[in-house]
Amino acid sequence: MIKASIVSIGNELLSGETVNTNATHLCAELLAIGIPVVSTYAIGDQIDPIVRALERACTDADIVLATGGLGPTDDDLTRQALAQFLGVELQLRDELLEKIQRFFAGRALSMPERNKIQAYIPAGARALANIGTAPGIVAEVKGKILFALPGVPMEMKRMFSESVAPELKRQAGGQAVVVRKLRCFGAGESTIAEMLGNMMQRGRNPLINCTATSGVITLHIVASAPNEPRAEQMAQKDEQTLRSLLAELVFGMGEQTLAEVVGEELTRQGKTVALAESCTAGLLAKLLTDIPGASEYFTHGWITYSDEAKTNELGVPALLVEQYGAVSEQVAESMARGARKKARTDFAIGITGIAGPSGGSEQKPVGLVYISVDSGTGCETKGCFFTHDRGFTRLRAAQTALNMLRLKLNI
Amino acid sequence: MIKASIVSIGNELLSGETVNTNATHLCAELLAIGIPVVSTYAIGDQIDPIVRALERACTDADIVLATGGLGPTDDDLTRQALAQFLGVELQLRDELLEKIQRFFAGRALSMPERNKIQAYIPAGARALANIGTAPGIVAEVKGKILFALPGVPMEMKRMFSESVAPELKRQAGGQAVVVRKLRCFGAGESTIAEMLGNMMQRGRNPLINCTATSGVITLHIVASAPNEPRAEQMAQKDEQTLRSLLAELVFGMGEQTLAEVVGEELTRQGKTVALAESCTAGLLAKLLTDIPGASEYFTHGWITYSDEAKTNELGVPALLVEQYGAVSEQVAESMARGARKKARTDFAIGITGIAGPSGGSEQKPVGLVYISVDSGTGCETKGCFFTHDRGFTRLRAAQTALNMLRLKLNI
Repeated sequence: MIKASIVSIGNELLSGETVNTNATHLCAELLAIGIPVVSTYAIGDQIDPIVRALERACTDADIVLATGGLGPTDDDLTRQALAQFLGVELQLRDELLEKIQRFFAGRALSMPERNKIQAYIPAGARALANIGTAPGIVAEVKGKILFALPGVPMEMKRMFSESVAPELKRQAGGQAVVVRKLRCFGAGESTIAEMLGNMMQRGRNPLINCTATSGVITLHIVASAPNEPRAEQMAQKDEQTLRSLLAELVFGMGEQTLAEVVGEELTRQGKTVALAESCTAGLLAKLLTDIPGASEYFTHGWITYSDEAKTNELGVPALLVEQYGAVSEQVAESMARGARKKARTDFAIGITGIAGPSGGSEQKPVGLVYISVDSGTGCETKGCFFTHDRGFTRLRAAQTALNMLRLKLNI
Repeated sequence: MIKASIVSIGNELLSGETVNTNATHLCAELLAIGIPVVSTYAIGDQIDPIVRALERACTDADIVLATGGLGPTDDDLTRQALAQFLGVELQLRDELLEKIQRFFAGRALSMPERNKIQAYIPAGARALANIGTAPGIVAEVKGKILFALPGVPMEMKRMFSESVAPELKRQAGGQAVVVRKLRCFGAGESTIAEMLGNMMQRGRNPLINCTATSGVITLHIVASAPNEPRAEQMAQKDEQTLRSLLAELVFGMGEQTLAEVVGEELTRQGKTVALAESCTAGLLAKLLTDIPGASEYFTHGWITYSDEAKTNELGVPALLVEQYGAVSEQVAESMARGARKKARTDFAIGITGIAGPSGGSEQKPVGLVYISVDSGTGCETKGCFFTHDRGFTRLRAAQTALNMLRLKLNI
């Protein structure tokens, strides 16, 4: 099996300033196309450490992806280190120089002299197109393939998906590889693995991989076939099977978030939603409005952190709070109803719970959250219990609320 | 100069699931005590790759910090790999076993058999105390010092600050090292560097380092002296100088956040605050309630995303919106006043702006935000302009609002 190693280059990665999200992104993308990463390295902007890291990465793996250090300034040394590692000279490529000059001309600027260095690549290597000025580099040595990509995450991600992934798929024995991602919410990894039975078996084609990020489970369907249409067909077939097995657990494709699919569907249906939050205290509204254009479907939110606020702002009867407690099915429902009535929206969500670390009791422990969705025809209310800490409880409660609204919208 | 290398161990770091924030944290902490990190490695839970990474890290540096793989399950192999690397056996330490048994007994549980492995450490090595069950390990070999810490961030951070940092300070040539962190908000890194003049010169003692994380600038004062009282005195003196140079830019010490210092001061003064958010849409409330016990000073928040919501919920005159626009000084002020009146709090904050990417105009471009703080005696309103993207604008607007409230509280 082909394996990969990642070399991240940049002083900012060693000073504590920058979290190395590039490596994480590449690990996920490579695994999804069936290439596991066995090691990652981060080093500073100095030639010797870069050369040493490239050597070590080539010992570990068949494919090496380096990111960073391709800029035009003096501390960008990946180009030089790569040439030294390959034992060749840097060569000026006229076509690259023209491209960089065009990049500046298109912005009505003249190219600074120092950008000329970006038109140099090691003899025998190939350039990869970039949206910025720095071209990527691909070189082969002793049966290993080395890629050098920019460090700017947006440029790196795009170059990976447009140039590196297709190249790697070609390496896969002339096979066409198609990847589809199904996004799921509402069950854990192990439950989903059980539901899929032997579909997740290693060595199967399509290969089905599973990753989890804060409650969202992503299933990667990786289909390999002699040609693209065949691979597409295989991926399509598995997607259908997964969708029927997982039913309403599947909420989207690719990189979609819960807030995104909910927002798109509200827009499409011309529906609106109001929010009444207690323990999540603005987090649900924040997630919903992370999406540009949220004003289409979101107009009003209340954060009723005290009992008095619940009563005065949303008309939750004080008696209800007294009888059942602020954290109860009845109060969550009353909050949702109150918000929908005041905001005159199609839907409203009420959330009340105990985020902790204090405020819990034996009957109502820390982590207990009630979520209610009022759809006008009635309320659906759910009691949830989240373990872990305050931040986890708040995030999962907000995600669960979005998921309940999604199901109401029949996505 | 003593240098460090970091080895992060865990399959989740190579699958794209987990971003390696442990390495970033350790880089910052080590640099702050004058030990630069020259390389970081991430590998999976397998003995041979761990041993190889330890070897490589020892070639790169004098101090090696490994994290992860100290748990009780079969895939936790750091302990075994470390013993193999040191060329010694693992030994059961009775005092560690007792500690782990006490940990479970304190939770009215009996210790699972598999946790016994956590009481083993390599012959000749020392254990470091942990809040969880896994003790850390410190060993010396060929003039290099190796630390093995847990992978759980909270446990790792605590073990680093309580056990590793003091140990490393002792290594600093018998010198006592004292580190103080001053947290600042309201100016960029370069402005602050200019204000400090030659205090940030390399080689100076105390050494002053500067790191920036989403708007908050942290100044690390690293004082070295033959003894602790002297180092304390030097750090103290520099802290006073920095405080007088930076005046109200300094909001806290150590790891404090803006929301934390604001929350503590509101509690101390027995004051309350209400929030009226438009473009930040819950983010400010979320930040304020990230702090446990926020219900002491926060009871009501409104997210008035539409003009109608501003008018109906907060009493912002429709005429005012019409005359000045929803994104204006006047509307921000009216939102703050309305929220304070309805919630009957000591303070209220109103925020209205254009988070983008669309909705901007020539007069009111994307990134323009008005923030108003009503203190009862009057409103202070500020117009800000944030570049970058939607997420950046929303976060900086919320932080700026917290900072304005902090200044009103005379922190």
